Amino acid sequence: MTVPELLDLVGIFVFALSGALMGVRKRLDVVGMAVLAEMTALGGGVVRDLILNVRPAAFQSVGYVLVPLAATVIVFFWHPHVARVMPAILVFDAAGLGLFCAVGTLKALEYGLSPLHATLLGVTTGVGGGMLRDVLAGEIPTLLYDRQLYAVPALLGSAMMAELSTLGLHGWPATLASAVVAFGLRVAAMRFKLRAPLARGVPPSE
Amino acid sequence: MTVPELLDLVGIFVFALSGALMGVRKRLDVVGMAVLAEMTALGGGVVRDLILNVRPAAFQSVGYVLVPLAATVIVFFWHPHVARVMPAILVFDAAGLGLFCAVGTLKALEYGLSPLHATLLGVTTGVGGGMLRDVLAGEIPTLLYDRQLYAVPALLGSAMMAELSTLGLHGWPATLASAVVAFGLRVAAMRFKLRAPLARGVPPSE
Amino acid sequence: MTVPELLDLVGIFVFALSGALMGVRKRLDVVGMAVLAEMTALGGGVVRDLILNVRPAAFQSVGYVLVPLAATVIVFFWHPHVARVMPAILVFDAAGLGLFCAVGTLKALEYGLSPLHATLLGVTTGVGGGMLRDVLAGEIPTLLYDRQLYAVPALLGSAMMAELSTLGLHGWPATLASAVVAFGLRVAAMRFKLRAPLARGVPPSE
Repeated sequence: MTVPELLDLVGIFVFALSGALMGVRKRLDVVGMAVLAEMTALGGGVVRDLILNVRPAAFQSVGYVLVPLAATVIVFFWHPHVARVMPAILVFDAAGLGLFCAVGTLKALEYGLSPLHATLLGVTTGVGGGMLRDVLAGEIPTLLYDRQLYAVPALLGSAMMAELSTLGLHGWPATLASAVVAFGLRVAAMRFKLRAPLARGVPPSE
Repeated sequence: MTVPELLDLVGIFVFALSGALMGVRKRLDVVGMAVLAEMTALGGGVVRDLILNVRPAAFQSVGYVLVPLAATVIVFFWHPHVARVMPAILVFDAAGLGLFCAVGTLKALEYGLSPLHATLLGVTTGVGGGMLRDVLAGEIPTLLYDRQLYAVPALLGSAMMAELSTLGLHGWPATLASAVVAFGLRVAAMRFKLRAPLARGVPPSE
Repeated sequence: MTVPELLDLVGIFVFALSGALMGVRKRLDVVGMAVLAEMTALGGGVVRDLILNVRPAAFQSVGYVLVPLAATVIVFFWHPHVARVMPAILVFDAAGLGLFCAVGTLKALEYGLSPLHATLLGVTTGVGGGMLRDVLAGEIPTLLYDRQLYAVPALLGSAMMAELSTLGLHGWPATLASAVVAFGLRVAAMRFKLRAPLARGVPPSE
C-alpha cells in the first residue's frame, strides 16, 4: 500500500466516523449507523464516478467498504470517547476534505473534463458524502447554512489542483500541495471563525 | 449561439433564480444559495443523462455552470426586487419547464428509448431539479403535494414531443410546439387554479 | 412471460403500493402518489444499474413503468381497503425484498463485481426504493432507525446468493433459495419482533 492509498483510507475512515456519530445523535440503530457511515465516506466519490460515467471506485475496492464498517463498530461501542476527541477529528476531517478534493479534481481531469468542470467535480467529491449524510438524517445539509467555510476551501484546493495540472504538474507533489492548501484554509476558517455571508439584508439567526 | 441554445440558457437562469430564492427564504448562506441554484438548474438534466448513461451535458458546457452563479449573485444583492417580480418569473419558469421537457424527451429518443420511457425522462428533466432543490432545503417537494398542475403539463408536453417524433417530426418546430403546449397548460393551470385531485375521501388541507 | 418475470412484477407492484400509501398518509395529491409509487418500486434497481454503469432496466421495460401506475390507481380509489390488508401486504413486501436482493446480487456478479460488492449492491436493490420514498416524503428512512430487521435479511439473502454463485450455482433454484432465506428471516423478524441494537448506552425511545 502506497502513502496516497493509506491517506485515502484515513480520509474514508474519518468521514465514516462523522456519519456513524450522526447516527448516534439521531438515535438510529446499528443499521442506520452503518448506512450513514458508508454514505458519508463513499457518497462523494460515487457521485463523481457516476458523472464521469465510470464504475464507482467504491465498488471495486474492499477497503472502501470495510473501513466504514470498522468506524461504525468503534462508534457503536465507544461513541462518548469518540465525541470527546471531536476537535481532533475535525482536523482529520479537514485533511480528508483536502485530499478528496485534490484527488477528485485530478481524476476528473484524467477523464477529459475541462478545468472548470473538474474543479466542480472535485468539490463534489469532497462535500457530497456529508450532504448525503445530512439529507438521510432528515436535516438540511450543514454545508448550505452554517456559514462555516467548508465549501470555499474545497473550491480553492480543487481550483489549485486544476491549475497546477493545466501547467503540466499532475504528480503527487501537486496533489499534496493542493490538499494542504484546502486543509490549511479549512483549519484557519475553524480557528478564526471565518464566515460565509448571508444575502444582503438577511439578518443572522443568532 | 443559436436561438434554441439561448432559450436553454434562459431556462437554466430562471430555474437557478428559484433555487437561489429558496436559499434566501431558508436563510442559507451564499454557499447554500449557489448550491441550490446549480442543483435546481442542472439537476433534472444530470439525472436524465445519468440514466441515458452519457456524460452529463452540465459537465461539458461552461454556460451551464456560470449562468446559475450569475443568478446567485443577482439574488444575493437584489432578492427583494427579484421576489417582487415573482409572477413574471413564474411565467419564465413555465417556459423553462416546457423547453426542458421537450428537449429532454428528444434527447432520450435519440439515445434509443421508447416513446413511453422518453416521455418519463422528459418529465424528469423538467421537474427533477426542483425536486432536488426542495429535498436539499429540507422540504417535501412542492410537486408532490401542492396540487398545482406542474407535472401534468410536463407530461403532456413530453408525450406530444414523443408522438411528433414517432411521426417523423424531430426538428425544432416540433420541439417548440411541444414546449409551447406544456407552457400554455402550465400558465392556464396557474391562471384558472386547476388542481390535481387528492385520493378519494382525503379532505383537503385548507 | 416466465415465472421469474411475473414474480418481479409482483415485487414491483407491492413496493409501489407502499409508495402510494405513503402518499395518502402524507396527504399528497395524485401526482405525488404516482411519483412515490414509481420511486419506491424502481428506485433500488435504478441506483443499482447506475452503479453498474448500464442503462436502467426500468427504462427498457413497459411493465416496470405501468405497474406502479396501476398500484397508484388502486390506492387512489380504495386506500382504506388497501390499508386494512396491510399485514398481508407486508408479507408480499418481504417476498419482494428477498427477490430484489437475490436478483440484484446476481446481476452485479454478472457485470463482474466481487461477491462483497455484489452483496452490497443486492441490498441496495432491495432497500433503495424504500429509502428514496421516505426521503421524498420528508422523513428519515425507516430503515435507519426503526430497529426492525429489514436490512439484515436483505444482507443475508444477498450474501447467500453471492456465495452460491461463487460455488457455481447461478440458476433460478439458487436465486429462489436466496430469496426465500431473506423472505423467511424478514417474516420471522416481524413475527418475533427481533430488533437491531442501538449504540451502547443509548436508551431506547419507548
